[in-house]
Amino acid sequence: MREEKEVFFNHVLDMAQRAGLFDYAPVKGMIIFKPYGFALWELIQKKLDEKIKSLNVENVYFPLFIPEKLLKKEKEHVQGFSPELAVVTIAGGKELKEKLVVRPTSETIIYETFSKWIHSWRDLPLKVNQWVNVVRWEKRPRPFLRTTEFLWQEAHTCHETEKEAKEHINEVLKMYRDFYEKELSLAGVLGRKSELETFPGAKETFTFEILLKDKKALQSCTAHNLGQNFSKVFNIKFKTRDKKEEFVWQTCWGLTTRSIGALLMVHQDERGFIFPPSISPFQIVLVPIFTKDEKNNIILEKETKKIEIFLKERGFRVKSDLEREKSAGWKFNEWELKGVPLRIEIGEKEIEEKKLTIVKRDERKREILPFSSLEKVVKNKLEEIQKNLFLKSRALLKENTFEVFKKEDFENFLIKKKGFVKAFWCEQKDCELKIKEKTKATTRCLPLENESQKEQKKCIFCQREAKRKWIFAYAY
Amino acid sequence: MREEKEVFFNHVLDMAQRAGLFDYAPVKGMIIFKPYGFALWELIQKKLDEKIKSLNVENVYFPLFIPEKLLKKEKEHVQGFSPELAVVTIAGGKELKEKLVVRPTSETIIYETFSKWIHSWRDLPLKVNQWVNVVRWEKRPRPFLRTTEFLWQEAHTCHETEKEAKEHINEVLKMYRDFYEKELSLAGVLGRKSELETFPGAKETFTFEILLKDKKALQSCTAHNLGQNFSKVFNIKFKTRDKKEEFVWQTCWGLTTRSIGALLMVHQDERGFIFPPSISPFQIVLVPIFTKDEKNNIILEKETKKIEIFLKERGFRVKSDLEREKSAGWKFNEWELKGVPLRIEIGEKEIEEKKLTIVKRDERKREILPFSSLEKVVKNKLEEIQKNLFLKSRALLKENTFEVFKKEDFENFLIKKKGFVKAFWCEQKDCELKIKEKTKATTRCLPLENESQKEQKKCIFCQREAKRKWIFAYAY
Repeated sequence: MREEKEVFFNHVLDMAQRAGLFDYAPVKGMIIFKPYGFALWELIQKKLDEKIKSLNVENVYFPLFIPEKLLKKEKEHVQGFSPELAVVTIAGGKELKEKLVVRPTSETIIYETFSKWIHSWRDLPLKVNQWVNVVRWEKRPRPFLRTTEFLWQEAHTCHETEKEAKEHINEVLKMYRDFYEKELSLAGVLGRKSELETFPGAKETFTFEILLKDKKALQSCTAHNLGQNFSKVFNIKFKTRDKKEEFVWQTCWGLTTRSIGALLMVHQDERGFIFPPSISPFQIVLVPIFTKDEKNNIILEKETKKIEIFLKERGFRVKSDLEREKSAGWKFNEWELKGVPLRIEIGEKEIEEKKLTIVKRDERKREILPFSSLEKVVKNKLEEIQKNLFLKSRALLKENTFEVFKKEDFENFLIKKKGFVKAFWCEQKDCELKIKEKTKATTRCLPLENESQKEQKKCIFCQREAKRKWIFAYAY
Repeated sequence: MREEKEVFFNHVLDMAQRAGLFDYAPVKGMIIFKPYGFALWELIQKKLDEKIKSLNVENVYFPLFIPEKLLKKEKEHVQGFSPELAVVTIAGGKELKEKLVVRPTSETIIYETFSKWIHSWRDLPLKVNQWVNVVRWEKRPRPFLRTTEFLWQEAHTCHETEKEAKEHINEVLKMYRDFYEKELSLAGVLGRKSELETFPGAKETFTFEILLKDKKALQSCTAHNLGQNFSKVFNIKFKTRDKKEEFVWQTCWGLTTRSIGALLMVHQDERGFIFPPSISPFQIVLVPIFTKDEKNNIILEKETKKIEIFLKERGFRVKSDLEREKSAGWKFNEWELKGVPLRIEIGEKEIEEKKLTIVKRDERKREILPFSSLEKVVKNKLEEIQKNLFLKSRALLKENTFEVFKKEDFENFLIKKKGFVKAFWCEQKDCELKIKEKTKATTRCLPLENESQKEQKKCIFCQREAKRKWIFAYAY
């Protein structure tokens, strides 16, 4: 079964490589984002950056290297990350006196600096974000999902009270869910991570767990309530409104290029990818149907360019495929592989009759429309695709979420049916480790909607007391 | 004199720190971009990225780490960079078999991959760019101008013929000059670098040299004609149109966060910075003149917010300073330090008379204008400032460019007057080294307009034959 899943993942990677999204790099566990793949990330960045800024979070840039002694200040944190670190020991031709760690995440270097920036409640809240590369030496790297170097945004905030910090986390979780649902058309579950899966150094970790087409789960972003753990270690104090001294309450949250992996592992069919119009590098591809009549081809090319300009002026991202040496059929396949949501075919007959043929990538039905309704039809169809992709992802999630009440069902469903398996659980670390050992599945999260549940039940696995229903699944 | 220059540089850094642009990092030679400083870089990126894309160059992302053996493939290249490398020797808790170099620039890793991507003339031109961080271990790091880690764009292109590669370089040089002149309001000289100053591994290097206020030069970007040096080493071959096999002709070009340094070292006065509206994080600051009358203050605040919304809706970047605890005078100083090009003061009297007071940061003259002309006046004044800053920079350049014909003048001008010193030069490496030893100045460039000069003159320094006039200066 493990192999069966690899088959799907490898198939997706093969499509992604053929679609020109990425290439393997000459460094272990790293990938190259080719122009088409990087365009996806640029659009994800643009959309998410706007949302981040609307939360009054400001962008900054902190150094790539962290002096080893800074990283070691918070014990849990360094324990969590030390197996994954890449370390610079030589620089400028000399052995360094103090080793420099390539950031796996930037809490330590940022918080060391926050202690200089924050003095009074007037300096709070302090909310910064950076779009950077980080390095974590992965044992089993996978393109997009777990690369040794990846790109992400990491935000770090300081607050006067724990209540405010928690409110901020809720605001962020809502932002991430909206982003995934509305921009990437991906459904998932917002929830809290178990003790074992909590970020090293954090008090609580939250996530949006997405179900992929192979029924494995993907942790698509995280937001951490750091409490005062780091502020005490890094001495980030402030004068309160009533003139006392207190440590700040902190949060941090991030989303990575793994979000592209989520896209690729959900929005596709046997012909290739289907990108949500909101972040598709091209929303519309124009394919003129060239013939052997070169005079006619010149007219077709002109008409195609006119339509391209018309659509671009209205804010759509459009590509005209004007290559002469490839057949229309070849081009249809190519742009279907590449996931462009709408195709418009422009032939001799269409020009004469002032009509166009439009094909939606998801349903692949041909429709004829008059020139005059082009803008409206394109707009509507793109919205439809955006919505339909989300509905499909939501259906996948619903159809593969199972509630179980017996231990044998729990194990059987996890191993055979896969998907999200919901069950009452004791929330104990030792039990979680045993479940993992037995089934290879892990807790994904306690759905936020179940957080305040307080039933008197028994744990699905160990039979100890259990109050709330958690989600378990295989995960990448 | 060297010290005198440091005084100016240190003064600018002090202002930059007080203006909230940057902070020193807990790692040697690196800086932290604070929100206000990073906002400058985001705007620079946005404007330049548009121009880069308009040259049909596509963004990509290649890994941070370069295997040592790749870097060593091109001999001149590795010789040029080896004293500056930061090297990862430990990863995932183990000593690496092959050391990984943190990219100082990405030719080698990109060209290794290009050899896989390029097969035929149909794959050309190939033009990619990436916005990334790079690390060069600097002996004398300086914030903004020469930091151990810096941010930049690096573009890499492959062409069928040397002619096409050269045409591309000309197109890029024009783009950089336009960018500096129109967006950053900075004047400079486009020119070719001497042999000694040519990029390691390149055939020719071009630059835009800017004159700073302390009359030192700054190399503000570079574009390199790589010829076939790298394509031969990395085996980047293609089938030509006439079915032969040839190595591609390459170029690369880059612009860094040093561009912010150029801004800071030119556009300022004794009160602080004056940012060109095109890339100023805020173009307009609104300062309501609060009094002790809180009722009145509430009205002022409302009116200010109305104006803010009005201007934002028209595409201006606006900040309202609504703090109650700081005086208007304090705020004027603060926003003058921070370089906001326009200030609008909103007082009780102004509201009554439906007028506003507007102050241009460069001239600091107060003007009264009626509400009704706000949009037009703001637009005009911002354009004026953008243009005036450029004219000032151009005047600085002209007033401090000296043409000399005698050896003693050459040395005197370089050492005492400073600025750009123009003279006939033999273009020989040994002579350049001697000039550097004697005067501490270096060749900055052969202005493009002098490239085709072919006079029969003598070298200003060594008296050997000289055909063309070069620019010499002290440089950062």
